[in-house]
Order: sequence, then C-alpha cells, then structure tokens
Amino acid sequence: MSLKLDDVVKLITPVDVGVAAAARRRLDSLTKPLGSLGMLEETAVKYATARGDVFAQVRRPAILTFAGDHGVAKKGISAYPPEVTPQMVANFARGGAAINVLSRHAGAELSVIDIGVAAPCEFPGVIQRKVAPGTADFTEGPAMTEEQARKAIEVGIEVADSHISQGSTLLGTGDMGIGNTTPSTALCAVLLSLRPEKIVGRGTGIDDARLARKVELIQKAIDVNKNRLTSPLATLAALGGYEIAGICGVCLAGAARKIPVVVDGFISGAGAVAAVAFDKSVSDYLLFSHRSAEAGHAAALAAMGARPLLDLDLRLGEGTGAALAFHIVVAAMKILKEMATFDEAGVSKKD
Amino acid sequence: MSLKLDDVVKLITPVDVGVAAAARRRLDSLTKPLGSLGMLEETAVKYATARGDVFAQVRRPAILTFAGDHGVAKKGISAYPPEVTPQMVANFARGGAAINVLSRHAGAELSVIDIGVAAPCEFPGVIQRKVAPGTADFTEGPAMTEEQARKAIEVGIEVADSHISQGSTLLGTGDMGIGNTTPSTALCAVLLSLRPEKIVGRGTGIDDARLARKVELIQKAIDVNKNRLTSPLATLAALGGYEIAGICGVCLAGAARKIPVVVDGFISGAGAVAAVAFDKSVSDYLLFSHRSAEAGHAAALAAMGARPLLDLDLRLGEGTGAALAFHIVVAAMKILKEMATFDEAGVSKKD
Repeated sequence: MSLKLDDVVKLITPVDVGVAAAARRRLDSLTKPLGSLGMLEETAVKYATARGDVFAQVRRPAILTFAGDHGVAKKGISAYPPEVTPQMVANFARGGAAINVLSRHAGAELSVIDIGVAAPCEFPGVIQRKVAPGTADFTEGPAMTEEQARKAIEVGIEVADSHISQGSTLLGTGDMGIGNTTPSTALCAVLLSLRPEKIVGRGTGIDDARLARKVELIQKAIDVNKNRLTSPLATLAALGGYEIAGICGVCLAGAARKIPVVVDGFISGAGAVAAVAFDKSVSDYLLFSHRSAEAGHAAALAAMGARPLLDLDLRLGEGTGAALAFHIVVAAMKILKEMATFDEAGVSKKD
Repeated sequence: MSLKLDDVVKLITPVDVGVAAAARRRLDSLTKPLGSLGMLEETAVKYATARGDVFAQVRRPAILTFAGDHGVAKKGISAYPPEVTPQMVANFARGGAAINVLSRHAGAELSVIDIGVAAPCEFPGVIQRKVAPGTADFTEGPAMTEEQARKAIEVGIEVADSHISQGSTLLGTGDMGIGNTTPSTALCAVLLSLRPEKIVGRGTGIDDARLARKVELIQKAIDVNKNRLTSPLATLAALGGYEIAGICGVCLAGAARKIPVVVDGFISGAGAVAAVAFDKSVSDYLLFSHRSAEAGHAAALAAMGARPLLDLDLRLGEGTGAALAFHIVVAAMKILKEMATFDEAGVSKKD
C-alpha cells in the first residue's frame, strides 16, 4: 500500500459487525458458562472482528519501539537526564532492557526505531529513521513542524507495513524518550478535553516541586500553541513528539490493513488518541494493554472508552505492557478456535 | 517426603526475608526507573523468596485440576445439573475445555484428578483418586468426615509432590464441581469471618430466586455444623468439598517443598484459605492469579491481603486464571535474571 499519511487514512474503514456477532455465537457454543471467560471473550471478539475472521490466529507478533527526545526535557521535567534516551537505545540493541526480555518471552520480534533521538543512535539493529535530533521546546512554539510530524507518522506507517507484509498479524507499540510524559499529557488533555492537572503524573518518578513545574509547562505549551491546534496533524505537531507520531502511524497502518495494534501505556496512548483523531474507526483495531501507574492513564483510558487487559502498576513504557498483553490476545484466539462446543463434547447445557 | 497431612504441615517454614531483600536490590539495579515494573517486581520478589533463590526460574509448570461433586447441588443452587461434572471431566480428557487450551498455551502440564465425582470418571489420562462419590448434603450435617477430608488433602499433597519430584517449580490449582461456589462461600465466610451474604455470588449464572436460596442454604449449613468447626480439618470437612480439600493439599505441599502455587479463582481461593488455616506461613508460597467476577472473590482476596495478577472478569474455574497468570510469573523471573544493570549497560542513574 501507499505509505503516505493521507492515503492510509483513506483506507481505514469500520469493522464488519457481522463478524463480531459470529464470534459471539461461537463463544456461546463453547463448553463453559456463558460469558465466563470475561475480558478474554471480549478480546477474542475484538481481534476476530478487526481481522474479519472468527478463527484468525496470531502470527509473528511484533513490538515496535520508537525513540525520540524532547526539547522541553532541558527544563528538568524528568527524573532522568536526556542522555538516557540514547543509552537506553544502546541497551535495547544489546538485548538488556525490559522490552527485550518481555518481547522474547512473548515470542515477539522487536523493532527499535530512532525516529528523533537528539544524539546519534547508530547501534546494530536499530532502524535509522531520525526525522530530527529531538523536538523543539514546545513551551516556546510547536514541538515539530507539520511536515516533520507527517514524516514521523509515515515512519511509523512504514515500519508497521513492513512487519505486516512479512506476516505479522499483531503489532504492539512502545516508546523511549526522556521527558515524554509531558507532551503526552498535553496531547491527551487537548484531544480528550481533559484538564492537564487531572492527567499529569510523576513519569519515571519526580517529586512534588517538579510535578508542579511540569503542570505549569504543559499549560504554557497548550497556551503558546493554542492557535495552531486546528487539525489532528497540527495538534500532534505542536504538542507531540517524534516517537508519539511514530506510534500514531502504527495505529493508522494497523487499522488500514486490519491488523490489530496493542497499545502500551500512557505515551503510546497519546499516539493512539492522535490516530483516532484522524479517523474514529481506528479504535476498532486497537487493544489497550494495561492501566499504568501514571496518574492520568486511567482518566485517559476512560475518556477513550477503553478497558485495558492488565492492571499491574507498570510505568516503564518501551512496549513492556503491550508485550505482556500479547499472551492474553493469543490465548483469546486459541479459545475461539480450539475449545470444544457443547454439542461436540456432549455436555449438558444450562437448566 | 512423607505424604501424611500432619508431617507435611510440620515441614512448612516461613521464607527467608534476606532473599526478598536481595531480590529487591537486584531489581533496583536493573535498567528501569525504580519500581516501574510494579506488580511484576512484587511477583518476582515473591517467587524468588519462596524458592530461596533470586535467580530461580520456572520449570515444568503444571496445573492440577480436581473434580468433585456436592450433595447440596441436588437442592438446585447451580445453573447446571450435576451430570455436567463428569461430562466436563470427559471434556478435559479429550482436550476440549478452556483449561486444556490455556494449559497448552502456557506450556504447562495438566493433571486432572477425580477426587470425588458422583459418577464414574474413568476417562483416559484422568487420575483416579475418588475418596467418595460426592459429598453429603452439608445443610443436613458435615459434607465429609474428617477422615475423608484428610484423605482428600493427602491426594492433593500426593499429586503436587509427584509433579515437584519430576521437576515442576510452579504449580497452579483448578477445580470442577457443579455447585462448588456454595461450599466455597461457606468455608470462606467461616475462615475469614465474613458474612455469607457479603461474599455469595451467582456462580455459573443463577437468577435472584436461586441466589436467595443459595444464601439461605449456606447459612443453614453453617448453623447445622457450628459445633463441628473446631479445627481447620474439621471445618474443611464440615463445609468444604473433595476438590477444595485437594486444592488445600496442593497449597500445603507447595509450601512444604518451597514451590510457589498459583491459586486460581474463588473455589481455589477457598482451598487456599483452608491451607493458610493449617499454617499461616503457607501464604508466603501462594500467588493469586486473578480477581474473578464471582461477587465475593474481591472481598475474600482483600481478607487474605492478596492482590491478584489479573482482573479479567473470569468466572470459569478449572484453573483457567492460574494458567493465564503463569505467563506473568515466568516473565517476572526472566526480568530478574535477564535484564542488564545500570552499570552493565552504562546507563545514567536518576538525577
């Protein structure tokens, strides 16, 4: 398919609700009390419906982790210095980070993309797609130009499309970028009409003074950019980041090609919110992996009408929640395909 | 080891808190913000401490599913007729039930034990350890004699010990028994000092009239047996069931041999509560897999001070929640062993 943003958005269509009904009928015929597998059944319906096939199975699951830096980080809104972004990308390349461990555990491929790290990140295996060396400080103007944001979304589309073309039928998003809960909060606040102070959190672990500073900077960024928030692309450009735009691209490509995307935590959630702003049907193709310990994540999920699969107080990002949640999605689809029906098993139905 | 109940209880000792401290130090040295893997870190600490080894890994995980019938079921407290118990055991034997699918998905062995089904259950692969063909109606006297309950606990010990001797380092519990939320509610109410109406639920899906009848029968069972509730064994005998006693035995054997046990849902929870009543140190070896949709499960978990790993509205039993949660436990131990430290990776620490 064309990897141009506008073309991809045009390809996105709502799911066929007939498949959802067929999946529910199948689930109700299986040897278990009606609805007794709870969210596992909801997940099976969602995945099957997105794929348009009741018996679709997960093949070649892949995590796509985008790394980028943020101009605002120099204002001290994170517990970690910005040089940690490339250091962690090097750690990903060597296989020592949490996302490496959890991707291997999930049997998932891991692609790491330098989409906007300030320092060079030419480590073996890291996909080089740097749009720019970090965003501009969004408290003084837009984080990216619209053209830069478009390019970053198209990087996400390209990487997702490449995995899908190689046979992946489940994608997960991930992020690395010191300071990136700050733009994510700003973006969610604007796109979900929530007050920033309602969804701001401590990120990797900041104290009360830095938290107050963070809220102030987020509000300043929204105010400085308020005349620019005229379209999904313009809003993402003004308030987002390169990794957030890449994640947005993955969500758009997944929806266009009917391949479900498991959204990681708060930062990935911001990318997903941006994708849904381009076309609300994108949400038919998204699964939310977990409710993070980041304070605003629960509110953001609620505003999206999403119930996440896991609730483990994760707040690491990288795609760790998505990788853990893959197991649940695969389980759900095996239930649909492999369980016996009441008739096949000769089990009596409800009185 | 001796498989006698009294000998096994004597072997149970508290865990070494020094191992917990070492596991936490290791977690804090890994390339992630402190505590950012939330419950995954807590799970790693718990498993490592139970095993007495920071780098312990999960090998040969196994689900042990016990099937039994209940005299009280003839009073119509379930949505399904009692003949479903042996029909589902046959389904387990053929590999068509949810627990078969989820055990395979978890890479776990599955042992199915007829410990007290009313009808014959001689299906290929089903372990034959029938203590009696179902319990007596506990609204008219004790469900089991103390000798029967002891024998059932020892069946659980024996099956668990057999898996452990073959190298299993993680066990999960499961149950099958039409009507078994009724004795489980009675047992949890007495052992956790909770009012039955606070923890009663709809099991496989009963209506309001049957629910009211269920509460009434549970209260009647507690009243009829009140002079018998003088010890953990006597209480389990009076108010429990064979599968619940078998699960209790698995928890005791796991604690005695320092092999963690993942407790499935509400019925398994009742077995775990009984095991903790024998020796409170048993709780050091238990992981709780999920918060079920059964109304009283959240209250029972809270009374045990347990936070479960999953919250997926499961209410099927069989060990399905335990099998799904194995993935999280294995992930937690891989994190401890496989992640790089800040020093190894050359990543800067917190400001």
